[in-house]
Amino acid sequence: MTMYKTKEISLKTSEQNQMIDITSMVRDFVKESHVRDGMCFIYVPHTTASIVINENTDPQLRDDILDHIERLIPKGEKYKHSSHAAAHIKASLLGNSKTLLIKDNKLLLGRWEALYFCEFSGPRERVVIVRVQV
Amino acid sequence: MTMYKTKEISLKTSEQNQMIDITSMVRDFVKESHVRDGMCFIYVPHTTASIVINENTDPQLRDDILDHIERLIPKGEKYKHSSHAAAHIKASLLGNSKTLLIKDNKLLLGRWEALYFCEFSGPRERVVIVRVQV
Amino acid sequence: MTMYKTKEISLKTSEQNQMIDITSMVRDFVKESHVRDGMCFIYVPHTTASIVINENTDPQLRDDILDHIERLIPKGEKYKHSSHAAAHIKASLLGNSKTLLIKDNKLLLGRWEALYFCEFSGPRERVVIVRVQV
Repeated sequence: MTMYKTKEISLKTSEQNQMIDITSMVRDFVKESHVRDGMCFIYVPHTTASIVINENTDPQLRDDILDHIERLIPKGEKYKHSSHAAAHIKASLLGNSKTLLIKDNKLLLGRWEALYFCEFSGPRERVVIVRVQV
Repeated sequence: MTMYKTKEISLKTSEQNQMIDITSMVRDFVKESHVRDGMCFIYVPHTTASIVINENTDPQLRDDILDHIERLIPKGEKYKHSSHAAAHIKASLLGNSKTLLIKDNKLLLGRWEALYFCEFSGPRERVVIVRVQV
Repeated sequence: MTMYKTKEISLKTSEQNQMIDITSMVRDFVKESHVRDGMCFIYVPHTTASIVINENTDPQLRDDILDHIERLIPKGEKYKHSSHAAAHIKASLLGNSKTLLIKDNKLLLGRWEALYFCEFSGPRERVVIVRVQV
């Protein structure tokens, strides 16, 4: 039988569109889990937020990502549901989960990779679920 | 050794672009599997269909999602393959699988989340594969 | 305890935007692993490349996918980071991992499905990590 350790990370977003680096929080949980080789599943139980892996250094690139996604799916477009539809469409395109590998009790991330919670309808209180599979 | 239970769900779509709520079908399979804590993998073995998690209440939001994806990837664009290329590009962007968590024999979905099969080249007969990991 | 077999596949891309079919490499690794029923996780540890599942026959469709993604996220757009931002945004939208099912020691792929490594910032030397879960 597979064993799991699961944790909820609580976040408070401050902007309407925002990327928050959660890499160190997930890394710490993997370390505490003492799993040597395993899998790590990240799940966002919201419909206007996503989880994205991208470059870990330049904050201007985060602006570029959020700005361009806004250009592709503008809040000002005419939607049936409300202007809020844009946030739902963004979340559908970027996805609400990620699957990561654990090797030697560490997340197997590339040198430039970081894990971001993406808010599309902030500010709000949010939750990210992290599950490590032993 | 990990144990799996796998099921194929058959669907018949009626529109060219369509979102079908498959949440209850997946929920029922998880319940029947008697797995307390585990993972649930959803896989769509088609190249012009996707699986998306989004809001479970307003049918107009489903229209907004499909309409906006059509605006981003219009059937009328000039493609080398044929007008059918649009359906393939949509499926590539939205993805053909989802990974869900099971807790206390239930899918760990957010309050507003539903699981949708997305048709981009209907009407057709389709299959969704659901695998529960014990 | 779950057992894993992990392999790194090295690739050399030759174009700025390029899709490379890696299906047979992944299939071979699954076969060598002797796993009958299991999961296969594909992970790309880069921030300007993705992994996509789509149609396995017409090379012109690969051109259509890459061309349309370029139209949606043009290199010539004004970005803060640099023109390189486009490659990062493409990778964020298409995603850097895939989860596949193994049945009877074979990847459970649809009839028309192939697995593609997508380069958005080539030519470069790249790595794809494949992990089979026993």
